[in-house]
Amino acid sequence: MSLLNALQSLLGSAHVLTGDDAAAHLQDWRRRYRGTALAVIRPDSTEQVAQAVRLCVQHGTPVVPQGGNTGLCGGATPDDSGQAVVLSTGRLNRVRAIDTANDTITVEAGCILQAVQQAAAEAGRLFPLSLAAEGSCTIGGNLATNAGGTQVLRYGNARELALGLEVVTAEGEIWNGLRGLRKDNTGYDLRDLYIGSEGTLGIITAATLKLYPQPVASCTALLALDSIDAAVELLSRARSGFGASLTGFELMAGDCLQTVVQLFPQQRLPFEGDSAKSPWFALLELSDSESEAHARERFEAVLGEAIEAGLVTDAAIAASVAQSRALWHLRESIPLAEAEQGKGVKHDVSIPISSIAGFVHKTNGLLQERFPNVRNVVFGHLGDGNLHYNVARAPGQTEADLLALQQDIYDIVHRSVIEHAGSISAEHGIGQLKRDELPHYKAALELGLMKRIKQALDPRGLMNPGKVLQA
Amino acid sequence: MSLLNALQSLLGSAHVLTGDDAAAHLQDWRRRYRGTALAVIRPDSTEQVAQAVRLCVQHGTPVVPQGGNTGLCGGATPDDSGQAVVLSTGRLNRVRAIDTANDTITVEAGCILQAVQQAAAEAGRLFPLSLAAEGSCTIGGNLATNAGGTQVLRYGNARELALGLEVVTAEGEIWNGLRGLRKDNTGYDLRDLYIGSEGTLGIITAATLKLYPQPVASCTALLALDSIDAAVELLSRARSGFGASLTGFELMAGDCLQTVVQLFPQQRLPFEGDSAKSPWFALLELSDSESEAHARERFEAVLGEAIEAGLVTDAAIAASVAQSRALWHLRESIPLAEAEQGKGVKHDVSIPISSIAGFVHKTNGLLQERFPNVRNVVFGHLGDGNLHYNVARAPGQTEADLLALQQDIYDIVHRSVIEHAGSISAEHGIGQLKRDELPHYKAALELGLMKRIKQALDPRGLMNPGKVLQA
Repeated sequence: MSLLNALQSLLGSAHVLTGDDAAAHLQDWRRRYRGTALAVIRPDSTEQVAQAVRLCVQHGTPVVPQGGNTGLCGGATPDDSGQAVVLSTGRLNRVRAIDTANDTITVEAGCILQAVQQAAAEAGRLFPLSLAAEGSCTIGGNLATNAGGTQVLRYGNARELALGLEVVTAEGEIWNGLRGLRKDNTGYDLRDLYIGSEGTLGIITAATLKLYPQPVASCTALLALDSIDAAVELLSRARSGFGASLTGFELMAGDCLQTVVQLFPQQRLPFEGDSAKSPWFALLELSDSESEAHARERFEAVLGEAIEAGLVTDAAIAASVAQSRALWHLRESIPLAEAEQGKGVKHDVSIPISSIAGFVHKTNGLLQERFPNVRNVVFGHLGDGNLHYNVARAPGQTEADLLALQQDIYDIVHRSVIEHAGSISAEHGIGQLKRDELPHYKAALELGLMKRIKQALDPRGLMNPGKVLQA
Repeated sequence: MSLLNALQSLLGSAHVLTGDDAAAHLQDWRRRYRGTALAVIRPDSTEQVAQAVRLCVQHGTPVVPQGGNTGLCGGATPDDSGQAVVLSTGRLNRVRAIDTANDTITVEAGCILQAVQQAAAEAGRLFPLSLAAEGSCTIGGNLATNAGGTQVLRYGNARELALGLEVVTAEGEIWNGLRGLRKDNTGYDLRDLYIGSEGTLGIITAATLKLYPQPVASCTALLALDSIDAAVELLSRARSGFGASLTGFELMAGDCLQTVVQLFPQQRLPFEGDSAKSPWFALLELSDSESEAHARERFEAVLGEAIEAGLVTDAAIAASVAQSRALWHLRESIPLAEAEQGKGVKHDVSIPISSIAGFVHKTNGLLQERFPNVRNVVFGHLGDGNLHYNVARAPGQTEADLLALQQDIYDIVHRSVIEHAGSISAEHGIGQLKRDELPHYKAALELGLMKRIKQALDPRGLMNPGKVLQA
C-alpha cells in the first residue's frame, strides 16, 4: 500500500489533504517560504500522530510538524522536493485538564494560544504567555520554538511555563512526560531538549503548563525618553522599585511610533510638541496583586522619581483599561506599519542589558556608514535584552534595492551582536531562515554536540529535515 | 608515562591526592557512601580540567566530578574499584564577573553557594538559591543536581537560575556557553541537558547566574494547623493574596517540631497549650519590594482572613529579624533532630499539590498497616509540592531493624508516589542511591532516550559511571 493510501486509511481521506486543499499549509502566513508536500495530514489524537509517524518512518518519508503556521523563520514549511508529509496539529485542540489547586493546565499541541489563555481565565487563573500572533498560533508551536512575547520579564519564555510534555518520538513512540511537578530530578531533562528544537527531534503533542494568580490591577504608561541609555537606567530602577510586579518593559525608537500614527491616523500619540517627537519611548506595565489604588500609588511613586532624576522627559499614564489598550496597540502596530512600508531586513537579537545601548549606538553607526540613509527600526522587549533591530528602505530606495543588501546587512548586524556577547535569534528560532547563518556565529563544538543529539534522537533524519541544522 | 605521573606533571604533585590525603573525598559527608580511587585531583582552571579529562580519556579512566561532597544520593562518591579519578572542583572558586546592569554573576563551579550569595549581596543584589548545605556545597554541584531549597516557590530551582554554562565535555573539550541572555533560541538546549545530569555527561566548570533585586523587607510566621488539607487551602490563599511576594511555604508535621524542641532545649516553639501540640505547622515567608510597614500590613491582612476562615488555629508572627531566624532555625533543625534519633528511611518526593493531602493520608495508612508504630516524619516545601517523607523507628525498634525494612518501605512509598502522579526524586537527584529504583518508576522509553543521550555525549562511558543510569 502506498503511504498516501495508508495515511488515508488511518485518518480518513478528509484529513489527508492534497492539491488545493493543502495549499494553505505549504506557505507561511507572511508568504516568505513556500514548499510542496506529498500530503498534509490532520491527525485527531496522539495515537494517530504516533501511527502516522510510524507509517512515514516505514516509507522513509520526512515529517514536517506544523501548528498555526505563524512562525517567522520558515520552520513549519516543507522544502520543495514534494517528498515530505506536513503534520498539522490543528485537530489536537482539547483542553485535557485544569487543576486549580496545582495551578496547572494540560492542553493539546493544536490549542490556539488565546484559547489556552481563555481556559485559564475561566478558571480564575492567568496563563501569561502573550504575543502578537496569539489569535492563531498554537501552544505546540510556541513550545517547539520556545516563544517569548511581552510577559517574559516576569514569567519567562514558553520554556519556563512548561512543566511536562507529551511527545511522539522520531520512531513514532509516545513519551508521556505530562508531569505537573515543580520539582522532578529523575534524570536528563528531555522536556527542555524537545522545547525549542523546532520539531527536529520529535513532535510535541500535549503539554502541562503553569498557571498563575490573575493580577488584581495593572497600570500602563508610555514614557518619552531622550536616549536608550536613559531607558536602560529606567529599567534598572523599575526592576528594583517594582520587583516582580514589573510585567512589561518595551522600548521603541521614536520614529517607530511616529510612523504608526502617521500611517494609522485613528491612533494617536498621547503627547504633543517636543515629547511627541521624542527619539525614544518606553511602555511600562505593572501588575499588582493588591488593589487598583495600591498599583497606582506605587506606579506614580517610581515614575515620579524617574522624572525627577531626568530619565523621563514626559509621561502618559493610562487612566482606564481602554487607554491602556490604546498604548499597547501603538506598540503592537509597529510591525504592521513596517509591513505597510514594504519588506525590510529583520533581526531578532538579544544582548546583555549592560551592553544594549552600546550595541545600538555602534550598529546604527556601522549601518549608516555602509548604507547611508537606511532607516533603523529599533523596538523590542528591553526588559529581556531583546530587540527587533530592523532595517527599512532609505528614501528613494526600492524594496528590491534593500533586499539585495540583505546578506550584507545581516553580516554587519550579526557580527556586532556576537561582539556584544548576544544571540542572533532571541525568540523566533532558527528554522530555515537562519540555518546557514548559525555556523558563522556558534562554536563548531556546540554545533557538533547538537548534531550528536539529533543523530541520537532522530537517527533516520526524518523529523523536519533542513531546519535548525544543516544536513 | 602512567596516568598518575601525567596528572602530577600537569597539576603539580600537591594537587594529586592519594592515600590518607584523598580519604575525605572518597566518602560522602553523611558516611553513607564510600569508594576508592586512583587519585583525587584538584585542577585550578578550566583548561586544567580539560587537559586532565583528556589524559583520563587516553587511559580509559573514569572521572567522578565532585563539588562540596554534600550530596544525599552518593552522586559524587567513586565506586570501590579504585579505577576512577575523582576531580574536585574546589580550586575553581573565582567570581569571574558581576554585571549589575544585566543582573548576572559569572562564577566558577567550585564557589561555595554562600560565597555566591555574599558576592551578590555585596553588589546590592540577591542570588536566591538557598539550602541547608549552603556553607559547604558548591554551585557546580547545585547545578549538576539541579538543587532546590527553600526559595523555589518564587525563584525556581537551580536550573531556572542559570543563564549560561561552561562545560568540559566527556572528550575534554571546553564548551563556552557562558551567556548572560534571558532569551536565546539558537538551537538545542544544551544548558538544561548538562544541568541535573549529575556529572554523567560532562563537567560544569562555570556558570552565569541570574541576580534579583534584594527585598526591602520580609515577614515570617509560624502557623498552627489542624490538617494537611488546611495547609493546602492556605497555600492557595497565600499564592493569590501575596502573588510573587510569597517566597517561602514550608510544611511540617507537628511531631517534627515537637521533637526538635525536646532534643534541643535552647529552641522553643512560639506556642503554648493545644497550639504547641498541633498536628501540623506551616512556616510562611513574604518578601516585599516596598517597605517594612507595607509588608507587615499585607501579611497580617491575608493571615487574618485565613484565621477567620478557620484554616489557621494559631499564628506567631516574627517581630524581629532574630525571631524570624529562630522560626527558620526550628524548620532547619528537623534533619538534625532526625539524625539524633538514628538512621531513618528517607524519601524526597514531589506530588501535584492537588493530590498531596491524599498522598499523605493514603501512604501514612499503608505504612501503619504494614509496619505498625513506625513514625512518619513528614516535612518539606509544600509550595513546590515537595515533601521529605521520612520514616523513623517505632518505639522499641532498633536502627538495624528499621533499615532491614528499607526496601519494603521504599516500595510502598514510591509506588504511592507514582499512583499520585509524583516523582521519586524531587530535589536530591538519583546518584547511586536511586539508580536501581529508577527503572521501576520511569517508562522504559524515557530511560531509553536518556541512554541514547548518554551514548551520544559520553560514548566511552567515562563520565561518572554508575550514577543515574545503570551500565
